[in-house]
Amino acid sequence: MTAAGPGTVRPGGRTARIRAAVRAATLAELAERGYAGFTVDGVAARSGVHKTTLYRRWSGTDGLIADALDLAAGEPWPVPDTGTLDGDLHALAGLVLTGFADPETGPVARAFVQAAAQSPAAARALHAFFARRHEQSAAIVVRAVARGEAPAGTDPAEVVRLAVAPLYYRLFVSGEPLDQAAAARAAAAACAAARAGLLTT
Amino acid sequence: MTAAGPGTVRPGGRTARIRAAVRAATLAELAERGYAGFTVDGVAARSGVHKTTLYRRWSGTDGLIADALDLAAGEPWPVPDTGTLDGDLHALAGLVLTGFADPETGPVARAFVQAAAQSPAAARALHAFFARRHEQSAAIVVRAVARGEAPAGTDPAEVVRLAVAPLYYRLFVSGEPLDQAAAARAAAAACAAARAGLLTT
Repeated sequence: MTAAGPGTVRPGGRTARIRAAVRAATLAELAERGYAGFTVDGVAARSGVHKTTLYRRWSGTDGLIADALDLAAGEPWPVPDTGTLDGDLHALAGLVLTGFADPETGPVARAFVQAAAQSPAAARALHAFFARRHEQSAAIVVRAVARGEAPAGTDPAEVVRLAVAPLYYRLFVSGEPLDQAAAARAAAAACAAARAGLLTT
Repeated sequence: MTAAGPGTVRPGGRTARIRAAVRAATLAELAERGYAGFTVDGVAARSGVHKTTLYRRWSGTDGLIADALDLAAGEPWPVPDTGTLDGDLHALAGLVLTGFADPETGPVARAFVQAAAQSPAAARALHAFFARRHEQSAAIVVRAVARGEAPAGTDPAEVVRLAVAPLYYRLFVSGEPLDQAAAARAAAAACAAARAGLLTT
């Protein structure tokens, strides 16, 4: 937002407050009802923001979800830094595992992927979210290369993809249970492939 | 089907023919319109089977998709047999890649995953489909263990999951392009992990 001129009622501040309230309501509704039960009415009731405002600014459920994802992508994220590539990748896969197991964040994360399967706007927001996560997680691989654990030219995003992809595959494709052993195998495999120089660009 | 008694009008044969026609129409509709444009009316028009019959036997779009998946799961599938684990896993990832790139099978495969994100019946059918694919592909790993390429106790399904999961992750989660290089890296990484004994049960 640009600075508000004199005489205005801090439009930037008010807009930001409404957006934050709507986003909080969106996340709470998704956590409680999942994507199938997510409605503009629910967000209106929970946020206290009128339905017509929600439709005007966010155009509907998919716009609300896309905006929540945009805000999530910009937030700081605890990129693991354990001192080894293997440790970092295990911690990274562990973050995905605990995120989906959490009764609050799990349904929201599932809803985001479900929304992307149906709405181009939600899909764009989800893809931007993952691009940002890959960028943030790249530090893990940059440090590993600096320590000599993986060869120069190792593609950071590819290492990250391989460490987490099997978890998403189980959840959204094959429908198999996620557990610590599955997360550990995905991390160990990604680490071995990176060390062997199989993931260079 | 059990054998038909005398005097019946070959109910098994007729039922099977209708099911096959409905399934062919379901696949053609999904290929042409995707999941978003898939309707019972479309399947009725294309198959020549009356809409009320479709609703009565398949209950709706998700039942039609689930039945098409059930039939697909039972079909023979060209499990690669190149003589090496690395070759087989590259061929396996290549099958996924070309399946999604194909203008006929690609939209159908995408529609199956999208349907599973929204319908419990489609999800159950998709999970059974992948369980069957994992079983069929297990031969790749059984042969590799017999050749001494991977240690005894290597989990066949886990090797297969790791070889294909990064492709599904790009398609349905991060929204990144699929290409031959991505498929090759996924296969090479799964192979390296199996050889290193990281995927034993």
